[in-house]
Amino acid sequence: MEGYQKGRRGKTLEAPEVVVVRLPLYLRALSQLAEQGTQLVSSEELGRQLQITPAQIRKDLSSFGRFGKQGRGYDVGHLLGELRQVLGLTQEWSVALVGVGRLGRALLGYPGFRPEGFKIAAAFDVDPRQVGQVVGGIMVQPMHRLEEVLGTEGIRMAIVAVPASQAQQVIDQLAACNVRAIVNYASVAAHVPPHVKLRTIDPVLALQSMTYYLREDARP
Amino acid sequence: MEGYQKGRRGKTLEAPEVVVVRLPLYLRALSQLAEQGTQLVSSEELGRQLQITPAQIRKDLSSFGRFGKQGRGYDVGHLLGELRQVLGLTQEWSVALVGVGRLGRALLGYPGFRPEGFKIAAAFDVDPRQVGQVVGGIMVQPMHRLEEVLGTEGIRMAIVAVPASQAQQVIDQLAACNVRAIVNYASVAAHVPPHVKLRTIDPVLALQSMTYYLREDARP
Repeated sequence: MEGYQKGRRGKTLEAPEVVVVRLPLYLRALSQLAEQGTQLVSSEELGRQLQITPAQIRKDLSSFGRFGKQGRGYDVGHLLGELRQVLGLTQEWSVALVGVGRLGRALLGYPGFRPEGFKIAAAFDVDPRQVGQVVGGIMVQPMHRLEEVLGTEGIRMAIVAVPASQAQQVIDQLAACNVRAIVNYASVAAHVPPHVKLRTIDPVLALQSMTYYLREDARP
Repeated sequence: MEGYQKGRRGKTLEAPEVVVVRLPLYLRALSQLAEQGTQLVSSEELGRQLQITPAQIRKDLSSFGRFGKQGRGYDVGHLLGELRQVLGLTQEWSVALVGVGRLGRALLGYPGFRPEGFKIAAAFDVDPRQVGQVVGGIMVQPMHRLEEVLGTEGIRMAIVAVPASQAQQVIDQLAACNVRAIVNYASVAAHVPPHVKLRTIDPVLALQSMTYYLREDARP
């Protein structure tokens, strides 16, 4: 592994966030190729699948080491392993869920976390009717136990599935409990301290980023 | 409006997709500022809220026209209106939902679409037990009515909330029915024709893009 690992003075350099965000997309495409039995893939083929230019893919991947052989393409299995290592996915990550409404329940039943190394290890809600219920094998805890449970379990990732009006407060509480990475489903521009990462998952943002392409031929 | 509108030969130029994807984030932050009664905002303040550099914000916005006054900041209301126009959000958009399982039902009950100008106008499922049910005021239709309903309603945006194993097939069907913009909740690297936009919403991708920042101080 080379590239962003060390700067000139031995200081560890981070890859640009735009690159880090693309790596899981590469991982997913490579996993599907591996399942299909593909052993080598060109940046052109990966680019076609991901709607990313081959040059961008080569540049992104070369930041982390020399994975491709000229004219031969990338070794799918090797690149998969290296990307998992770069992204810290060689271990299992425990995740806390806050908010056990309709969306939270759908997330607790979602089968896609475990195969990728993520485990919802604790769930919380403010609603006393939810607390104590067992959903997807997890007992819903009251919010006042947040700090204790996260500390005991060493949880530093969380998913926020509460109404927009409560999201910032919950995110602040999570940040105060040493959570360093938050996926937020509430439609708010939430703030986090600089050492906390936040990704907002919002179908409205996704839709709004595509109407731009439809607007010209839109019906009046 | 200037910038990307016309190229040298009068051809309409598109803004880079990375910029288009950021515009809804600006829109959301500006909406919150407007609700709080803020009339002017600096690129520094916007940048702080969105964890984007002020230089990036100025560059992104200047692509679409001259919104800011030096040393004075952006007029929140004016910029909101212009961004809505750029993104084609001055009209209401009808959206089809495919997949009425737990996630689909959460989406049908989601109150965040209408205030932003999006309306789930039709819902579809392959499961005969779902078909005919009314969820969130919408009657679930069988898949074989997809083309007819989308055509009649002029729907060109869709949300896919089906299991991963069915997602590519559903996306192909939607593309064949003239759908041009798809939000996909299934955890697959789906393919679309070049004229179709696709955004994948996936908590695993979001989590995987943050473990990179946690890996070094991760417990062994």
